[in-house]
Formats: sequence, C-alpha cells, structure tokens
Amino acid sequence: MTEPLRLGIAGLGTVGAGVVKIIRQKAALLTERTGRPITISAVAARNRDKDRGVSLSDYAWEDDAVALAKRDDVDVFVELIGGSDGPAKAATEAALTAGKDVVTANKAMLAHHGQALAQLAEDNGCVLRFEAAVAGGIPVIKALTEGLAGNDITQVMGVMNGTCNYILTRMENAGLSYDQAFDEADKLGYLEADPELDVGGIDAGHKLALLAAIAYGTQVAFDAVELEGIGKVSIADIRQAADMGYKIKLLGVCRMTGRGLEQRMAPCLVPATSPLGQLDGGTNMVMIEGDQVGQIVMRGAGAGEGPTASAVMGDVMDIARGTRLSTFGQPASSLKLVTAAQVATPAPYYLRMGLIDKPGALAKVATALGEAGISINRMRQYDQTNDAAPVLIVTHKTTRAALDIALVAMNATGVVAGDPVALRIESV
Amino acid sequence: MTEPLRLGIAGLGTVGAGVVKIIRQKAALLTERTGRPITISAVAARNRDKDRGVSLSDYAWEDDAVALAKRDDVDVFVELIGGSDGPAKAATEAALTAGKDVVTANKAMLAHHGQALAQLAEDNGCVLRFEAAVAGGIPVIKALTEGLAGNDITQVMGVMNGTCNYILTRMENAGLSYDQAFDEADKLGYLEADPELDVGGIDAGHKLALLAAIAYGTQVAFDAVELEGIGKVSIADIRQAADMGYKIKLLGVCRMTGRGLEQRMAPCLVPATSPLGQLDGGTNMVMIEGDQVGQIVMRGAGAGEGPTASAVMGDVMDIARGTRLSTFGQPASSLKLVTAAQVATPAPYYLRMGLIDKPGALAKVATALGEAGISINRMRQYDQTNDAAPVLIVTHKTTRAALDIALVAMNATGVVAGDPVALRIESV
Repeated sequence: MTEPLRLGIAGLGTVGAGVVKIIRQKAALLTERTGRPITISAVAARNRDKDRGVSLSDYAWEDDAVALAKRDDVDVFVELIGGSDGPAKAATEAALTAGKDVVTANKAMLAHHGQALAQLAEDNGCVLRFEAAVAGGIPVIKALTEGLAGNDITQVMGVMNGTCNYILTRMENAGLSYDQAFDEADKLGYLEADPELDVGGIDAGHKLALLAAIAYGTQVAFDAVELEGIGKVSIADIRQAADMGYKIKLLGVCRMTGRGLEQRMAPCLVPATSPLGQLDGGTNMVMIEGDQVGQIVMRGAGAGEGPTASAVMGDVMDIARGTRLSTFGQPASSLKLVTAAQVATPAPYYLRMGLIDKPGALAKVATALGEAGISINRMRQYDQTNDAAPVLIVTHKTTRAALDIALVAMNATGVVAGDPVALRIESV
Repeated sequence: MTEPLRLGIAGLGTVGAGVVKIIRQKAALLTERTGRPITISAVAARNRDKDRGVSLSDYAWEDDAVALAKRDDVDVFVELIGGSDGPAKAATEAALTAGKDVVTANKAMLAHHGQALAQLAEDNGCVLRFEAAVAGGIPVIKALTEGLAGNDITQVMGVMNGTCNYILTRMENAGLSYDQAFDEADKLGYLEADPELDVGGIDAGHKLALLAAIAYGTQVAFDAVELEGIGKVSIADIRQAADMGYKIKLLGVCRMTGRGLEQRMAPCLVPATSPLGQLDGGTNMVMIEGDQVGQIVMRGAGAGEGPTASAVMGDVMDIARGTRLSTFGQPASSLKLVTAAQVATPAPYYLRMGLIDKPGALAKVATALGEAGISINRMRQYDQTNDAAPVLIVTHKTTRAALDIALVAMNATGVVAGDPVALRIESV
C-alpha cells in the first residue's frame, strides 16, 4: 500500500468542514481513484469549540495556521482561511518554504500575490493549486490550464460572482430595488464580510485576473482589471434592458490585443435568450474561446460547501496522483509582465440619463454623442418623473474612450441630471 | 533544456493533419506550457501522396502503423486511424507492449476493448488517454476523471453525436424529412463510413460507455448500453414535440442504481427552452451530476479538425508535463464488472401511432395502457390521413418495462397500424 497523503487544513468554515466530510465519508473511493489514502493530520481555525457538523477529534489541533503549515506530518497545506494577506498568506508562504504543496480557495491572495507565491512554490519544488478560487465547483482552472493547453486562447468570458447574479436576478424576477435585493442577499448570508468585494465586482475581478494569467502566460495583473460594480444598476435599467430583449449581468472578459491585455469586469447587457442571459441565481458560467477548439462553455454552482469542497478535492487528488503543474500553467519565471490595455474593443452601449426640461436639451445630448463620433441606434424619452425626464439611448458600436468623451461633454451641457448610466452591450 | 517528447502519429485524416499543424505552428507555446519541446518523429497513413495541407517532409514515413508504434524514436503513439479493431488496435497494443504511452481519439476501440487495453497499459507502466474520443473539444474526460474526482457521480447525461443533432435540427428548422436531412448530412461529409454508427446511436453509445466506466469505476460495458437510433424519428414527431414545447435529441444517460448500471442512448423529448433543447447543429453538451458539486454542464464543438486536435493535444501535453493517470481514473484491475440494469427509472413517454378506423379502437388502446398500469396525461387524435388516424399520447410517469407490455398489448388489438413510436420525455 502506498503512503497516505497527509493534509493540514487551515480554516474550518463551510468549505473546510465540507472537505473534512468528504475525506471522512469517501475514504475508500478516494483511495481507489488516487491509489493512496488521503488523511488529515491536523486542522486549524480560530474557534476550537464551534460545532461544524463533523467530528475533528481524530486530528491534531493548531491555533496557528503557520504552525500547522510547518508540521512534519503535513504533506499538503489546504488554505481555506481567506483574505489576501494576514494568516492566509503567512501560512501559505510558510508551507511552500517548508516544501509542502498548497491547495487554496483564496482568489484574493492569488490575485494580489499570485506571482510571488507561484515563484516561491517553484523555488521550493512545490505545487500551488487553486481550482476552488474560481467559479466554485466548475473545473475551469483545469480546463484552461490542461485540457485546452494546445490552444491560443482568444477570449475568456464569464459570470463568476453568484451573489451579484442573485441580486440582479431577484431585481429582475421579483421587481426588487437594488437595496432590497442586496438586503435579501445579506440576510441569506450570500455577501462577503466586506460586501464591496461582491457588489463592487472585486471578487469576480480577482477570478478574472487569475484566468487571464493562465490564458495568456502573463503575471497576474489584478490592478489592471477595469472594475465596475453593480451598485449603479437600477430596477429601471433592468426593466429597460428586458424591454429590449436583454438581461444585465456582471460579466468579465479578458483578451490579449495588439496593445496589451484587456481585462474588464462590469455589468453588461446580454441577450436574454443567450446562455449567459438565462443564467439565474447563484450559478456561474465561464466561456473559453480557443483558436482550435472554438467556444467551450462551462456552467455550475459558483459557491457553496459541496461545490467548493469538490474543487478543493480535485486539486488534492491531483497531488495524490502525482500530477505536478506550474501554478499558472507554465514556470513562474516565464510569465510575462503585462501591459494593461484600456478596453478598446468597440461595442454598442446602453445609456440612461435624466434630462432636465429645457428647450433643446435632447439636441445637446445628441450633439455631445455626435461630436464624439458616436451614432445613435435607438432612443426613447419618457414622461418627466421628478425634475428630469428619463432618456434611454442605445448607441451603435463605439469605444469606451469615445463614450467617456461624450459623457464629459454631456455633463457640461447642464441639461443632464446626475451621472448617466452607461452599460456595454455584449453579443455573447 | 529538457528532452523533447517525440510523437509518432498514425492516421492523417482531418484530425491527424490538425495535430501536425498545431505542433508545427505552436512549438514555442507548447514548450513554454509543458517545459519541453513536443516533436514528431514519424507518421503513418494509407496514402503517402495525398495533400493534407501541411508539410510532412520533416518526419519519417511508415506505411505500417504497427511499425510506427514500435519505433525507438517514438515516446507517444498517437492513434488516429479509427475502427474498433484492425490496424488501430494492433498498433495500440504494439505501442503499449513496447512501453510507449498512447493518445487516441478512438471511441469504438475503447468501447470494445477498453478494459483489455487499460490493463495492457498498466502492465507496461504506460498511460492511455482518450479525451478526443468523447465530445470532441470539450475536456469532459478530464473533468470527470480529475476535476470532479472527489464526487460520487449521480448521473452523466449528454448529447454527444453532432451528426444526429445536425439531422434533428435540420428536420426541425428546415422542415426536412429524415431522409432529406440524412442526405444533406451525407453530402456535407458529416456521416461515418458506416452511417449506422451515427444514426443508430452506436457512436454516441460508445462515448457514453466510456463516461460510465470513469464515473462508476466499472469495466466498459458498451454491450449493456440500451441503444436506439434516430431513424424512427419522423418530421411528424418533431412537429408534435415542438407543439408541446419539446425538442427531440439523441440523449445519453448513465446512472448507477441499486439494480446495476443503467446506460441508455435514445432519442428523447427535452424541454425546448432547456440548455439541451437549445443545442443546435453539431454542438455537444455533457451534464455531469455529482453528490458534492451538483450539476456541471459543458458545451462545445463535438467534432471537426480544430476541436478534436485540441483534445488530442491536451492529452499529449499532459504526458509532456509528466501527468500519469490510469486510463479510467483508477487501476484497471480495480474496475468492477458491471451488472447491466434495464432502464427502470420512470419517466413520462410520448407515443405516436396510427389508429385504424374501427368502432372502439381508441378505447382498446387506452385499455392496453391502463392494464399495464400506465395513465394518460394528454391525448390527441387527428383526422385520418391514409388508412389510419394519427394518435398522440403523452403518458404520466411509467417504466419502460410497463410500456413494453402495453405496446405488445396494443399490437394485439389489431387496431394499431404499424409500430407505435415511443420516446421518453426527459425533464432535464
């Protein structure tokens, strides 16, 4: 019988408890599939006394994740603490330095320190895997790093934050305001401790940056992601979009262009009947396009105990089977420092603004667009509600840069109340 | 610099030529991602003089695939000849016996000889990979074997024959008869040399049997797949199904039950608005359900040069990276011999038949159903067209066994013209 693979698990929230359950309940299956037993030597968490629905008495307890990471009886350090820095990073570094492989679900840590950690793993002959960090249970890191490795990746696109998708879906289906849907998500425990991580698009941006690094062999460049949260999306936008056959989704896109790497995470209009448009609730979807394979679409649960634990176990079992991969699919030292390109791929845009009732107001807005080289595809003006009349404009294809010029010019006209909402329309 | 991984490629049809092109055009990318050059030592095919759109002059030529498989300068034998036996099998066996890893796209060979070949690979310390054999470019073998390895798989379901889906889509969208759509597919070169492999559901059945072996740790049991082709599906069925909000798809399902392994590949009605219902043309879709992960859906091109070559390259690059997996995800000797279970999971069924115009005819059909314990959900009788009046029945949930009893009883009534069409309705 082959030696067991011994885990040290730090962080015993939902996902950590889920991993412990799988290892306890499926011991025979895991051994059959990997050829060796997978055992837990020790665990660490903040609160030793909390009931996690699973017995921990067989495992040594460490209060300190760093101490856990260094234990002699730990082969693989499973980091489920979370947070970009602090104990998660300290313990991951300690584990790698001690020559232990690491499996993590921590997108924030990798988005901020992915290059340094990948290099540290490499220097110590260790692997650092993170399937659970992106799109929950969907094995998308594996698909991109391994299954589609023979492709030049032309684009990666996805809805990767279930909480935002839940909020947008509830606004659409139940007619809730953004604040109402946000509160509902909060009560259901869907929001991160800092909700801005979710609704600000940051969490999804972390995931996108990791996918981009693998797809293009570049150093993770989270700071270069153009980020826009869903806080600006109103029920009016959702309804207008629906009227025109669209839904609003927090959509991430990355692609390599002649000017550098485009990465953006922003609410967009997508056709209501498209697979992305039909994606309701907490489900995630990632679409990978390769020059050989065409488009591969993967859909599944983006979060939750079972799906995330499934992804963690996939990585652990790879290690048990002896699979050794570079963190981002190629040696860390070969990852290119990336030039961030402002999003320049033209697209139609949806604009919604309040127009102050003055003679020639609409003409001024149309002029601002025209002078920026933007032509109008559709326009609607509604009855004045408060002080301003709602105006809805769908442009023909234009660049974000041109649009920003037009938006500045519009604000200067003095006829636009507040900031117009501008959302890209994606023909996915 | 690490030693190159040297391939011998047998079979230079579309896919083989596609693999050669990728290796020639993406040499730097492949080396960057795997850490070593991937080269071709020799190729083999039937016709040396055929123009394949790619230069082969750098490679040694073998007329005989077995000779190619044994060459000292070949590390990985890439089998793209096809056919369950003959030279494909002989060369694969020769390669494994000679200690060479094998990558193949050959579903027929593995469906019939998977267990023996997996054992041979294991006995010789070789790997035998076959991502390209199932669902073209979709990395579904990898997802099931590796990414979702921590799950007990509860069900695998999929549309995995692009040709059948093309024919059914054309019947639906263009109102073609089965024969017209078949001829169109034939002219476009979509059909196998023996078309029954496609339209008889055999090719898709091969794929399902391979997925089942991985999912349940069982020996490949293609003979135990309940197979039904699409030849019986008429334009009338397509239209009736559409009227009721369904589409007809050649759908494969496998699941482990208390009575054994259920594997079936048959035309089914699926909701028109479901992801499977919206799957048009040559696209494939596989849905994997695991106890932890829930449902994972993967969609992509099921055939063609680029997608299939992409899958072959995924396997080749895994080997270049040093990944060593058992053929079906666990040692061949541990794969269980499977008891085949007749499909017993109850479902509603769609029935279409011609009713001979005699007093009490409909009552006799209804009685036959009732006596088999099957209750009717919906029924329509249409104007007599030729000698018989078309009757359409949708049953409540029933088993195939009960339905077969009813069908025998119906035929005995003497009021049913010809064989009724019976299609399962899946609420995917």
